[in-house]
Amino acid sequence: MTQEQWRKRSEWPLLVAAMVFLAAFSVQVIVNTEAVVVEVLIWGTWAVFVVDYFINLYLAPHRVRWFFRNLHELAIVALPALRPLRLLRLVSLLQVVHRIGGNALRSRVLVYVLGAAALLIYAGALAGLDAEENVPGANIKTFGDAVWWALTTITTVGYGDYYPITVLGRCVAAGLMVGGIAILGLVTASVASWMVESVAVETAAELDAAEAPVFEELRRLRTQVERLTALLEAREEPSAEPSEAARSTEN
Amino acid sequence: MTQEQWRKRSEWPLLVAAMVFLAAFSVQVIVNTEAVVVEVLIWGTWAVFVVDYFINLYLAPHRVRWFFRNLHELAIVALPALRPLRLLRLVSLLQVVHRIGGNALRSRVLVYVLGAAALLIYAGALAGLDAEENVPGANIKTFGDAVWWALTTITTVGYGDYYPITVLGRCVAAGLMVGGIAILGLVTASVASWMVESVAVETAAELDAAEAPVFEELRRLRTQVERLTALLEAREEPSAEPSEAARSTEN
Amino acid sequence: MTQEQWRKRSEWPLLVAAMVFLAAFSVQVIVNTEAVVVEVLIWGTWAVFVVDYFINLYLAPHRVRWFFRNLHELAIVALPALRPLRLLRLVSLLQVVHRIGGNALRSRVLVYVLGAAALLIYAGALAGLDAEENVPGANIKTFGDAVWWALTTITTVGYGDYYPITVLGRCVAAGLMVGGIAILGLVTASVASWMVESVAVETAAELDAAEAPVFEELRRLRTQVERLTALLEAREEPSAEPSEAARSTEN
Amino acid sequence: MTQEQWRKRSEWPLLVAAMVFLAAFSVQVIVNTEAVVVEVLIWGTWAVFVVDYFINLYLAPHRVRWFFRNLHELAIVALPALRPLRLLRLVSLLQVVHRIGGNALRSRVLVYVLGAAALLIYAGALAGLDAEENVPGANIKTFGDAVWWALTTITTVGYGDYYPITVLGRCVAAGLMVGGIAILGLVTASVASWMVESVAVETAAELDAAEAPVFEELRRLRTQVERLTALLEAREEPSAEPSEAARSTEN
Repeated sequence: MTQEQWRKRSEWPLLVAAMVFLAAFSVQVIVNTEAVVVEVLIWGTWAVFVVDYFINLYLAPHRVRWFFRNLHELAIVALPALRPLRLLRLVSLLQVVHRIGGNALRSRVLVYVLGAAALLIYAGALAGLDAEENVPGANIKTFGDAVWWALTTITTVGYGDYYPITVLGRCVAAGLMVGGIAILGLVTASVASWMVESVAVETAAELDAAEAPVFEELRRLRTQVERLTALLEAREEPSAEPSEAARSTEN
Repeated sequence: MTQEQWRKRSEWPLLVAAMVFLAAFSVQVIVNTEAVVVEVLIWGTWAVFVVDYFINLYLAPHRVRWFFRNLHELAIVALPALRPLRLLRLVSLLQVVHRIGGNALRSRVLVYVLGAAALLIYAGALAGLDAEENVPGANIKTFGDAVWWALTTITTVGYGDYYPITVLGRCVAAGLMVGGIAILGLVTASVASWMVESVAVETAAELDAAEAPVFEELRRLRTQVERLTALLEAREEPSAEPSEAARSTEN
Repeated sequence: MTQEQWRKRSEWPLLVAAMVFLAAFSVQVIVNTEAVVVEVLIWGTWAVFVVDYFINLYLAPHRVRWFFRNLHELAIVALPALRPLRLLRLVSLLQVVHRIGGNALRSRVLVYVLGAAALLIYAGALAGLDAEENVPGANIKTFGDAVWWALTTITTVGYGDYYPITVLGRCVAAGLMVGGIAILGLVTASVASWMVESVAVETAAELDAAEAPVFEELRRLRTQVERLTALLEAREEPSAEPSEAARSTEN
Repeated sequence: MTQEQWRKRSEWPLLVAAMVFLAAFSVQVIVNTEAVVVEVLIWGTWAVFVVDYFINLYLAPHRVRWFFRNLHELAIVALPALRPLRLLRLVSLLQVVHRIGGNALRSRVLVYVLGAAALLIYAGALAGLDAEENVPGANIKTFGDAVWWALTTITTVGYGDYYPITVLGRCVAAGLMVGGIAILGLVTASVASWMVESVAVETAAELDAAEAPVFEELRRLRTQVERLTALLEAREEPSAEPSEAARSTEN
C-alpha cells in the first residue's frame, strides 16, 4: 500500500479520533474531573495519532525528507504531556472546511475564517481554562468566562475583566491574539480584493474596447487587399492554382 | 396579488412599524418601565411582522423553498421572548440606507458603514442595557453608560470600565465586536480600493498609449494599399464594378 | 476684492490665529488657570475667525449657497461656549501638511496621517483634560495622563487605567476612536496599494510584451507592401505624382 | 579604503557588537544588577559603534551631506545615557532578516514582520522593564510580566492588568503601539495584495486572449499580400533582386 492510499483510507478515522479527543478533553477541562473514562479516551485517541504517524513514516517514499517536512506532526504526537498542545490535532478538522468552501478563493477564505475563528475561540477557551482553573489567584474559573475571555482576546477588545496569569495561559492568549490579527487581516483583505476586482473588471472592459478599432481597421485592410488580388487575377489567364487562392481567402 | 406586489405595498408600513418598535423598546429599556402603553406598542408591532410573515408565506410561488430561505425572518418573528433579538427588525431600516447611497460602490459602502455603525451602537446599547440593568453586580446601569460601553466595544478599544456579566449581555457584546471588525475591514478596504483604482486608471492609460503606435502603423499601411489599388486601377479600362470599390474604401 | 483674493491674503493670518489659540487654550487647560491674558487671547482669536467668516460670506458670489456649503465653518465660529469644539479651528493647520506632502498620493497620505495623528492626540488630550480636570471622581487630571489616555485610545489599545467619565470627555474619546480607525485604515490601505502597484506594473509590462509581436508583424507587412508598390511603379512610365508616393512612404 | 569597502568589512563585527549589547543589556535589566562585567560590555559595544560612526564620517565622499542624512546613527551613538534608546542598535539585526527573506516582495514582508514583531516585543519588554522596575507603584516588575505587557500592547488588546506609569515607559509603549499598527497593516496588506494578484493574473490572461484574434487576422493578411507579390513577380521577367524578395518573405 502506498502512502497516498493510506492517507485516503485514514482520513475519516483520524477526523473521528480528533473529535473524540475534543469531546473528552472538553469534558475533562469543563467539569474539572479526573475520571478514568475520559483519561482512557484522551490516551486512546493519542495512540491512534501515534500509530498513524509511524505508518506514514514507514510508507513515505523518502523517509528522512518526510520526517523533516512533517516536524509539526511529530510535535502533535510527541508532546502529550503539554496538554493544550494536544488541541493542535484539531487542525485536521479544517480539512472539512476545505471541502465546504469550494473552489472560489474568497468564499473559501470566508468559510475558513468563520471556521477557524469558532475553532480558535473554543480551543483557546479550553486550553486557557485548563491552564488557569486550578491556580490560586487566577480569575478564569468557569468555561463561560473562558469563552468570554477568548472572545475579548481574539477581537483585541481586551476589557481586562478576565486575563491569564500563568505562563501557559499567556501563551494561549498570544496564540489567540495572533489568530485575531490574522482573521482581521483576512476579513479586510477579502473585502478589499472584492472591491478591487470590480474595478479591475471595468479596466479590462475598457481595454477590450480600446482593442476594437484596431481590429476593425485590420478587417477593412484585408478586404482591400483581397479586392486588389481579385483585380490582378482578373487580368491574368486562368492560372494553375485558383483553388488554393480561394482556400486562403476562406480562412 | 403576487408576492412582489405585496412586498412593494408593505415596505413603508413595515418600516414605520420597525421604527415604532424601536421607540417603544427604547422607552421601555431606558426608563426601565413596565408601562402598559409601551407593552401594547411592542406587541402590536410584533403582530404586524407576524401578519406580514404569513402573508409572504401564503403568496410565495414555492412555499417550502421560501420557508427555508427565510429562516432568519422566522427567527425575528417567532422569538419575541428573547427581547434583544427583536432588534433584528431594525435590519429593515438599512433599506433606507440603500436608497441614500446611490449606485457607486464605495459611496454606498461608506453610507452603509456609517448607518450600520450608528444603528449597531444604538441597538447594542439598548440590548446590553436590557440584559444587564436589573442584574445585581452588573455595572451597565444607565443608557449613557450603555452607549459608551457599546462604543468602546465596537471600536475594540475596550477600556474595561464597563463590561457585561450576563450571558445575554456577552452575546450582544460578541455581536458588537464582530460588527466592529467588519466595519474596520470595510473602511480599510474602501480606502485601499480607492487608492488602487487611481493606480489602475494610470495603468489603463499607459496601455492605451501602447496601443496608439500600432493603430498609427495600421493607418499608414491602409493608405499605402489604397494608393496601390489606385495605381493598378489607373492602368485598367473602366471595370464593371467601380461602385463597389468606392463603397469598400469609404467604409 | 474677490473671495479668492481674500482667501489667499487671509490664509497666513488665520493660521497664525489658530496657533495663538492653540497656545492660549493649551496654557489655560494644562495650567488650569483663569488668567485674563489667556482669556483675552482666546476670545481675540475667536473674533478673528468671526470677522473672516463674515467677510467670506459677504464676498461669496452665491451667498446662500456658500452659507449652506460651509455650515462647518459656522459651527467653528458660532459655538465658542462648547470649549473643545474650538479645537476644530486647528483643521486649518492641515493646510500646511497639504503643502509638505507634495503631489504623490501615498506620500501625501503618509504625511497627512502622521500630522493628523499628532494633532488628534494633542487636541484630544487638551479637550479631554478640559472636560475632566475639574470633575470629582475623574481620573484624567494632568496633561501627561491626558496625552497617555489619548494615545491608548487612538491606537485602540485601551488599557483602562485612564478613561473619561463625563459626556463631553466621552464625545472626545469617540472622536479619537473614529480617528484611530481612520488612521489604521489609511496606513493599511497605503501599504496594500503600494504592494498592489508593484504587481500592476508587472502586469502592464507583460501586456506591453504581448503587444510587441503584433507591432513587429505589422512592420514586416508594411515593408512587403512597399516593395509591392515599388515593383508596380517600376513597370509604369514615370507618373505624374512620384513625389507624393515618396512622401507617403517617408511618413 | 572607500566607505563602501569599510561598510562590507564592518558589517559582521557590528552585528556581533549589537548582539553582545543585547545580551549584556538583557542581563542587566532582567537580573536588575549593577555588575561591572555587564557595564563593561555595554560601554565596550557602545565604543565600537562610536568608532564605526567616525570612520564612516571620515570616509564619506561628502561628509556634511552624510552627516545630515545619518542623524539617526548619530542619535544611536550620542545618547547612551537614555538607556532604552540604546536598543535602536538592534535595527542592524534586521539586515539578517533582509538576507533570509530573499527577493519576493511578500515573503520578504512576512519574514520582516515576524522578525520585527519578535524583536519589538523583546526590546520593548526590556526597555519597559528597565524604565519601570525600580519605580515605586509600578506594576511591571519581572521580565515575564514585561513580555506579557509588550504582547498585549503590540496586538492592541490592552487588558490593563499591566501598564507603564513613567514617562519613559509610556514612550516605549507608544513605540510598541505604533509598531503594532504597522505590523497589522503589513499583514493585512500582504494578504490583500496576494488576493488581488490572483485576480490581476486572470485579467492579464483575458487581455492576452483578446490580443490573439488581432494577431491571427494580421497573419492572414501577410499571407495574402505575399501571394499578391508572388502573382506580380510571376508576370515579370526575372528581375535583378529576387534574392532580396525571398529574404524579406522568409523573415
